[in-house]
Amino acid sequence: MSEQSRDNGPENSGTPTSFEDVYAVNTELVRTVEAALESENSKAVRELLAPLRPAEVAHLVVVLGREDRRRLVVTLGDELDVDTLIDLEGPVLADLLVVMSPHAVARAIPELDTDEAVHLLEEMDDARRDQVLSRVPAPDRAAVLAGLSFPEDSAGRLMQRDLIAVPAYWTVGQVIDYCRDTVDLPDEFYEIFVIDPRYRPIGQVSLNRLMRTRRPVLMREIMETEATTIPVDMDQEEVAFLFQQYRLASAPVIDAAGRLVGVITFDDAAAVLEEEAEEDLMRLSGVSSETDFLDTALRTTRTRATWLLLNLGTAILASLVIALFEATIEQIVALAVLMPIVASMGGNAGTQTLTVAVRALATRELTAANAMRIVGKEVVVGSLNGVVFAILVGLVAAFWFSTPALGVVIAVAMIVNMVAAGLAGTLIPLGLARVGIDPAVAATVFLTAVTDVIGFFVFLGLAALFLL
Amino acid sequence: MSEQSRDNGPENSGTPTSFEDVYAVNTELVRTVEAALESENSKAVRELLAPLRPAEVAHLVVVLGREDRRRLVVTLGDELDVDTLIDLEGPVLADLLVVMSPHAVARAIPELDTDEAVHLLEEMDDARRDQVLSRVPAPDRAAVLAGLSFPEDSAGRLMQRDLIAVPAYWTVGQVIDYCRDTVDLPDEFYEIFVIDPRYRPIGQVSLNRLMRTRRPVLMREIMETEATTIPVDMDQEEVAFLFQQYRLASAPVIDAAGRLVGVITFDDAAAVLEEEAEEDLMRLSGVSSETDFLDTALRTTRTRATWLLLNLGTAILASLVIALFEATIEQIVALAVLMPIVASMGGNAGTQTLTVAVRALATRELTAANAMRIVGKEVVVGSLNGVVFAILVGLVAAFWFSTPALGVVIAVAMIVNMVAAGLAGTLIPLGLARVGIDPAVAATVFLTAVTDVIGFFVFLGLAALFLL
Repeated sequence: MSEQSRDNGPENSGTPTSFEDVYAVNTELVRTVEAALESENSKAVRELLAPLRPAEVAHLVVVLGREDRRRLVVTLGDELDVDTLIDLEGPVLADLLVVMSPHAVARAIPELDTDEAVHLLEEMDDARRDQVLSRVPAPDRAAVLAGLSFPEDSAGRLMQRDLIAVPAYWTVGQVIDYCRDTVDLPDEFYEIFVIDPRYRPIGQVSLNRLMRTRRPVLMREIMETEATTIPVDMDQEEVAFLFQQYRLASAPVIDAAGRLVGVITFDDAAAVLEEEAEEDLMRLSGVSSETDFLDTALRTTRTRATWLLLNLGTAILASLVIALFEATIEQIVALAVLMPIVASMGGNAGTQTLTVAVRALATRELTAANAMRIVGKEVVVGSLNGVVFAILVGLVAAFWFSTPALGVVIAVAMIVNMVAAGLAGTLIPLGLARVGIDPAVAATVFLTAVTDVIGFFVFLGLAALFLL
Repeated sequence: MSEQSRDNGPENSGTPTSFEDVYAVNTELVRTVEAALESENSKAVRELLAPLRPAEVAHLVVVLGREDRRRLVVTLGDELDVDTLIDLEGPVLADLLVVMSPHAVARAIPELDTDEAVHLLEEMDDARRDQVLSRVPAPDRAAVLAGLSFPEDSAGRLMQRDLIAVPAYWTVGQVIDYCRDTVDLPDEFYEIFVIDPRYRPIGQVSLNRLMRTRRPVLMREIMETEATTIPVDMDQEEVAFLFQQYRLASAPVIDAAGRLVGVITFDDAAAVLEEEAEEDLMRLSGVSSETDFLDTALRTTRTRATWLLLNLGTAILASLVIALFEATIEQIVALAVLMPIVASMGGNAGTQTLTVAVRALATRELTAANAMRIVGKEVVVGSLNGVVFAILVGLVAAFWFSTPALGVVIAVAMIVNMVAAGLAGTLIPLGLARVGIDPAVAATVFLTAVTDVIGFFVFLGLAALFLL
């Protein structure tokens, strides 16, 4: 490969060969922009940002500190592309929207797709939202308000209202001519929807199918009728699952009467898909706020404290179990030395199981239909690893404290706790899902409570029974 | 809404209003199929599966047990849609490919896009792969082998080779006629690529742009020239990041000489994006195998044992620290009761920070440019929560054991450990990323080692100094 690129050397100097060649935002650029902002050199800032695409400016904005971020918006003023705002979220977006004038935001709204406009307005407080909306032309305002009227995390919030819908008796030629003559089409679209007289979708035709078909053919003849339609109040998680399963480029959204009201595109669904996986990760680790990274230290402290408080409860519960055996520990202090091993191994084995179960629930690979088989598998895994590590830890303990009986006690406790971890790691998320609670939110606390209490109780209890 | 649907009641009985109306695979279906498979009622199995789409059959296959899964493939025989295989992965796919005859797999290959065929062959051992490939027509075989020759997780593996490339001097009309006349087009495409005489991409035109443009216009006049091109050896994680940033539907892939060699579409990128988020989650919890859920109990036990072994090392390290203070614990057994609280709170606070940092690194929101600012923020968060929980735990300890000095000691240890957790939670992943190691893989072990060692050492050490 290097031979080849040397041969073609002078001719393909413009050929990108690495990520850095393709993507402009790197540490050097960030530092240069920071320097320009801090020396208030507006001209330099503008020149540095001019070659960047909106998504790159958005990335730059996220990486900058809060002060620099605001300076950047003030410096760019009207030159700030609204598409940059679309790519931002949470506290960073809220921050910038406060700096921008309501007038500037209002002017941007008509240029955006409905879902994008809704994304911006979601981040504003009611007063500011009203200020902005009062400056938006009436038809755009109505569309945005309709979008905001759907519940958060529903298909209605994800969809855009601009779409192309034609009757089944139109020919391919008519559709193409219609597209050529209509100015106000959506920015991007991948399918033409075919509707009945009551505006209900009865089929769809992908653009590539349309392109391949001769002009006189009727839409009715080439439309796909088995397409997936999304009810407007479907949860975004379910929407994203359907997009992934069927590899959809876009899908029509219908209201309760079956009328076509919008379209969701792949990029919205992909964002939800990644967001949901990330959410599971964050929640399992006790980070409840999706925008934790972007938030101020004070707000981060507050949101994380809730989880730490729950965890304190679990830790105190474990301490109460240990306190039951104070007399035993006083006599055999080796127990205090070894007991964290039992709890920690149980906790870790349980977390492995829990994580796999939570993801499998999210991807619908774990369902009521195979739940018992999976619980069984995890108990087997827990037993097998329990035996392996029981032998290992038993030997370590027996030799360290020259007490074979201590080795046996810790080995038995280890096996019991690893099996408990396998059971708790599957049954807790299954149980939470069953009663309609997100298994990622509360599962870790329950799991740690189980593995700590069982770990300490069995180990210290067996020691009290057999070693005194 | 319910009012409305009641009004339209009889007319829209076919209108889907929930996920279950849209998606066919549910527990009832799984149970019915299982029963049919177990009673060897092939006709019933076929009838149950007939209305399902390939992705739904794939989902069903995942949820079924191993035996039923194999029975299903044998029952369906040639009726098994190859698109079903494409939607499977890892052990489940490998399992089915073993049951199917090489002939059946070989016959499927020419119908697939290159990336899909590569996906199937990746799961086979060399002998079987050769058996299959020897039955595939030469041109398809060459395309698949070329795909397999790229490194795993590279753009070359993700791309398909079928695409539409035209010269810049063609008119829109010529392109449309070409699409209408060519039989062997890719199944799905979203852009037409414009190439120079050396087959290097110089622009692209989305189908919707093409459709809106009148026939005599030249491709040169409407092509977008700023499109993102992907080097063939770019890592799939970087590819997915670019798709997300720029909301791409598809992107051209080029070789080292800049020639167009393939195209990557949004569905491939979305899958990678979700996979990477899921991988971070799994790795942080010590699950190294991406297909852990689908694997057999034995293989799952083995892959998870590695992590448990590492964790055992950390736990023994913590025990060694405790052992330093055996004499102190013997005199004040309350220390043994309370010490897990300090370690556990540090571990949890550290995990919160670590998780946020690992995801921010993956999404490139955390870079060298803002690393120090983020470390600073986490130290502040750690200090603030440290103080809050120090007061809380200090009071609990002081009253529980009626020893105010014990409360002070645990409070100070708590603050120190929470600050250490903030530092370790950011510096460890940043350090690992710097030396080119995936921060999600090893970070948790290091972090627990830090918070356990510091937690036990500071608490027991202060107790030894001030309480004896």
